[in-house]
Amino acid sequence: MYKHQTQIRVRYSETDRMHYVYYGNYAQYFEVARVEALRNLGVSYKELEEVEGVLLPVLDYQIKFIKPAFYDELLTINTSITKLPEARIHFEYETLNEKNELINKASTTLVFVRKETMKPMMAPDNLFSKLKSYFS
Amino acid sequence: MYKHQTQIRVRYSETDRMHYVYYGNYAQYFEVARVEALRNLGVSYKELEEVEGVLLPVLDYQIKFIKPAFYDELLTINTSITKLPEARIHFEYETLNEKNELINKASTTLVFVRKETMKPMMAPDNLFSKLKSYFS
Amino acid sequence: MYKHQTQIRVRYSETDRMHYVYYGNYAQYFEVARVEALRNLGVSYKELEEVEGVLLPVLDYQIKFIKPAFYDELLTINTSITKLPEARIHFEYETLNEKNELINKASTTLVFVRKETMKPMMAPDNLFSKLKSYFS
Amino acid sequence: MYKHQTQIRVRYSETDRMHYVYYGNYAQYFEVARVEALRNLGVSYKELEEVEGVLLPVLDYQIKFIKPAFYDELLTINTSITKLPEARIHFEYETLNEKNELINKASTTLVFVRKETMKPMMAPDNLFSKLKSYFS
Repeated sequence: MYKHQTQIRVRYSETDRMHYVYYGNYAQYFEVARVEALRNLGVSYKELEEVEGVLLPVLDYQIKFIKPAFYDELLTINTSITKLPEARIHFEYETLNEKNELINKASTTLVFVRKETMKPMMAPDNLFSKLKSYFS
Repeated sequence: MYKHQTQIRVRYSETDRMHYVYYGNYAQYFEVARVEALRNLGVSYKELEEVEGVLLPVLDYQIKFIKPAFYDELLTINTSITKLPEARIHFEYETLNEKNELINKASTTLVFVRKETMKPMMAPDNLFSKLKSYFS
Repeated sequence: MYKHQTQIRVRYSETDRMHYVYYGNYAQYFEVARVEALRNLGVSYKELEEVEGVLLPVLDYQIKFIKPAFYDELLTINTSITKLPEARIHFEYETLNEKNELINKASTTLVFVRKETMKPMMAPDNLFSKLKSYFS
Repeated sequence: MYKHQTQIRVRYSETDRMHYVYYGNYAQYFEVARVEALRNLGVSYKELEEVEGVLLPVLDYQIKFIKPAFYDELLTINTSITKLPEARIHFEYETLNEKNELINKASTTLVFVRKETMKPMMAPDNLFSKLKSYFS
């Protein structure tokens, strides 16, 4: 299993009139979390798109809320890749608040797509080989 | 079962550089869809908060993407309440594009909370009685 | 002068913990307002991009806030094109709340860019000729 | 004059189908920039609201775009407070891309409001005295 931790500070714009982080904004936080998890592996998602011509659209997303997050909190997101990617890559997320309480759990499945043809493809070699050492 | 249909036009701001509606933005569309579904029943979510002191935070949210949506498309969202609410209310959504293709399926569970105490409560009488006739 | 009116209902996601529409979200409303103003003229901004290969990035944007907008309000945006476009097109906006009070005034200047070369260009003929009758 | 520098990485959600950061999203970046500028002075905007009961809504905002920003760029925002606040506080911003090119210039004026009465007020003593040493 590959694990990575990212921190994100809640912006004013991300709160709603209930004083909570709007439920839809966590999708953005998890996008940041998985991109930073890949960067930490040595894989730039930007280069995956621009140099290797690979897109990674989201296939499914689910989240269970336990507690809300509030303005200006420094959230910690623990991101895990629990199995080696094939045609899809699955990420799991846990968000913790500043008191280290688990405030939600989420996951996303993304699918590798060749930009030129818009057809599904297997995980790029570079990403696969960098992840492989975490699954031995 | 109670069903309602809402249309939403995709804004430029809601697209991303993949040319798709960003996966996180559907949460906003479903918020609009369920609020309009309630309004059509004669229940204003704003008044629920401001007059009756009831909040309705989201407990869980899940979405499966089938196809992307694109800029300026007029999307149709079919919203269903499949059972009478108790302490929670569950909404199911289907999004259709302009060609009438199903592009995603989603659901949310929300929980009734008394604003003053922030404690869970049963669905307000007004909402419950308006929904009741759809479940006989 | 060409004038057009659009209505936009405030989404929960667009409010912030001050209970106001977040100051940054009006840019989205004005994007909707100018696209609808063009559509009403018979010009689809989507087709301008996709068929004619014209992009219209924003060059400047300014807004003065008079009063806030709140959740669920049905805002009215009055959009004006005050002079015929050349290499640039200028839009002015006034936002009114449900009580018909002026709550802000704004403007944007956008520049016509040929997508293929990313070079500035004059306003497309189709748009220019449709606007011309309003400036005689 | 008081100056502060903040860095913000562009999220995928913040891009649009033109591949640019959507013009409306800079308002969020400047919100982060001014809050971090205040934090660096020893003033927490969150505490200003929650402990001192002071709100700081935006009165006006203007931006001139010179170049676009792109996905995953690490932007640098230089924030300046050019004069001591009285009933209002004015911030100026310059955004630089990774090549250190100036990509836009912006400013915002915010007004101090007492939360309890929603009436304008003078800048809180704590903030004023911390800024004073930069204007001698």
